[in-house]
Amino acid sequence: MPDVPADHSNPDYLRQHIADQAVLAQIFGDSLETAEIREIGDGNLNYIYRVQSSDAQMAIKHAPNFSRMSGGARALTPDRLKFEARALQLFRELAPEHIPEVYDYNSEASILAMRFLSPHKIMRKGLIEGNVYPLFADHISTYLANTLFGTSDYAMLPAQKRPLVAEFALNVELCEITERLVFNQAFAGSQDNNWTTPQLDKHVTRLQTDPAIRLRVEQLKLAFLTRTDALLHGDLHSGSVLLTQDETYLFDTEFATFGPMGFDIGMLIGNLFLAYFALPAHGASAARCDGLLDDIESIWTGFERKFTALWQDNRTGGAFSATRFEDAAGSVAARSHLQAYLAQVLNETAGFAAVEIVRRVIGRAHVIEFDSIEDAKRRAPLEAAALDMACAILGRAAPVTDIAQLTAAARNVP
Amino acid sequence: MPDVPADHSNPDYLRQHIADQAVLAQIFGDSLETAEIREIGDGNLNYIYRVQSSDAQMAIKHAPNFSRMSGGARALTPDRLKFEARALQLFRELAPEHIPEVYDYNSEASILAMRFLSPHKIMRKGLIEGNVYPLFADHISTYLANTLFGTSDYAMLPAQKRPLVAEFALNVELCEITERLVFNQAFAGSQDNNWTTPQLDKHVTRLQTDPAIRLRVEQLKLAFLTRTDALLHGDLHSGSVLLTQDETYLFDTEFATFGPMGFDIGMLIGNLFLAYFALPAHGASAARCDGLLDDIESIWTGFERKFTALWQDNRTGGAFSATRFEDAAGSVAARSHLQAYLAQVLNETAGFAAVEIVRRVIGRAHVIEFDSIEDAKRRAPLEAAALDMACAILGRAAPVTDIAQLTAAARNVP
Repeated sequence: MPDVPADHSNPDYLRQHIADQAVLAQIFGDSLETAEIREIGDGNLNYIYRVQSSDAQMAIKHAPNFSRMSGGARALTPDRLKFEARALQLFRELAPEHIPEVYDYNSEASILAMRFLSPHKIMRKGLIEGNVYPLFADHISTYLANTLFGTSDYAMLPAQKRPLVAEFALNVELCEITERLVFNQAFAGSQDNNWTTPQLDKHVTRLQTDPAIRLRVEQLKLAFLTRTDALLHGDLHSGSVLLTQDETYLFDTEFATFGPMGFDIGMLIGNLFLAYFALPAHGASAARCDGLLDDIESIWTGFERKFTALWQDNRTGGAFSATRFEDAAGSVAARSHLQAYLAQVLNETAGFAAVEIVRRVIGRAHVIEFDSIEDAKRRAPLEAAALDMACAILGRAAPVTDIAQLTAAARNVP
Repeated sequence: MPDVPADHSNPDYLRQHIADQAVLAQIFGDSLETAEIREIGDGNLNYIYRVQSSDAQMAIKHAPNFSRMSGGARALTPDRLKFEARALQLFRELAPEHIPEVYDYNSEASILAMRFLSPHKIMRKGLIEGNVYPLFADHISTYLANTLFGTSDYAMLPAQKRPLVAEFALNVELCEITERLVFNQAFAGSQDNNWTTPQLDKHVTRLQTDPAIRLRVEQLKLAFLTRTDALLHGDLHSGSVLLTQDETYLFDTEFATFGPMGFDIGMLIGNLFLAYFALPAHGASAARCDGLLDDIESIWTGFERKFTALWQDNRTGGAFSATRFEDAAGSVAARSHLQAYLAQVLNETAGFAAVEIVRRVIGRAHVIEFDSIEDAKRRAPLEAAALDMACAILGRAAPVTDIAQLTAAARNVP
């Protein structure tokens, strides 16, 4: 094949890249020459190509040195793809059934080649289309328990974990996006904010002027900045899930960083709450919406149960290790800690979920569940209900101690 | 000067090293040829040489690729000196009056050249000799407030702080020593432990078999493993302080790592409590011992006051920044957080102080204040008093909310 200039939007360039990497070329064999290469991504930062031949297919992700949504105006190093590849590798070791196989990461070309998942759908779209995913709660709670426990000080020795913390602490650019979009703009005000006005004005005012809410949100941000409890996916919303009725995969791990476990769990269930509030406008029955609340409860209880099982059997890390805590006093202390720790994770999960709900309704980056409801009169009361629930959680004086308190907060919205 | 083989114990090698570094050579000028070079260190890991001529002097620190106390048996990379040099640089920017000037760090030779402090004494020894240091509490509280605030998310933006966290997360080897010696051995039992027996046996049994104490200590260890609140000195005991009546310097920063602020403050005051309990055997009057408790109170109140002043005037970081929290609600939220945060730091300070007291009395690495009392009958009741106090702190159900509760715990020991 002749040399083609480095232009990722040119199919021949990608074809040549595949031909040049033995591990990729052998997947296609002779069918590479006629493979169809098409950009299929709708993400904010990167490009995704589907390469499909008569014999095989794969997904090619390219991270340019700018943010895609900026149209090239906002510089962003392609390093994010390195963090994505590394996180995929680590998560796949811990939850192999829920992370797609990576075939090759090439830092020079800034190309990540991985399994193309088909007929899997983005969960966010699947929910709007009316699908139900009966195994999702079980799958995602396995993923969460395995990856969060597995990268914590309960499983890893400091000699293993500290270098990983060092590695992901350099994921500065994408963490900055999280810090700004998730925690700052919606609550301190920003001209990038965007909400249905005037219907939601009162909510926005409350969220920005209630000292208790401001305190709670910023303490959650501080936890994100200062805690290295576990390696987070970092962007675990329903747009980062590809699934069928039988299988669940997580991808888009470029925001991976060490942080509090509740960040991943909370962002995920925050997006399920958003779906719960928006889906009636997409024709979902009350029963299907309630099913989402059941899923939220099952995700937490599943996580708690699976985390506890790992705690009992796999405590090989630097904190509360089975060997140092196998004596009578140690066993009692370890049980007490597990209980206190899970209580903290639950309460932080509730907080992060509420923050995610708020920023997706009044901040810069919205969700299609709401944005696709074109009639503002129809959309606003649903968005208001989501904000009511988020305000109730963020304004609570007492911690959330039971996942049912969280789903009840959604059910009890007027 | 002829080439000399790399043998740091050979004065001619060090002399040549100095001659080869222009910045060092110019300090001595012609007097280098006749400068006296002598090993003066008594540390566990490294060697310290005093280079003294008629015109100038300096301290040379050499970190070999093993731990000094192991006699070469325990391998340890010389990287620790890199972390020491880097921490000295960062701390000196924040507290220039309390960190000695570094002239040169040479990673290849594993040599750090810095100002030789004279007539400054190691605080631990100075206290035993009967000195009082009226400015110490003021100086050290300035150092603590400046360095801990200055490396926190209240002062630094994530783009500045995350790369530093990455840098120091690689200080794995020395953190492992802290994890093992400070948190593990004394509380889970170890053949390396060493205490005055049978007098302290009951204390050891309580510390190792009280589930509440085991829980509290391991949660403090978990905080050390998972929190990146600020860059810690990491080994801030009275043997890491060189001072006169007028000046206070901190050194030996090779244990530097990001962690909870209470670790530095607690280790420091834990060692002052050890001195408080031991000094009567060294002829100290009750008034002088009480003065140490006054110092402990002044260190905390000074830290709190200076930290608060920095909080009010210098909040330029990623969390609770002045610009995002200047509005009415933000100001109220920021004040609430400061109060809650300082309360947490105080309670953790108390916990880390108690852990330090315990491990210095029953663990592997003792303090000369006690070990120099040769008569076990005289030493044991003083050590028991220190352990009584530590047990009282670690066994408390309620948090320590006032520094006076901590000093009272020392005064109230039978």
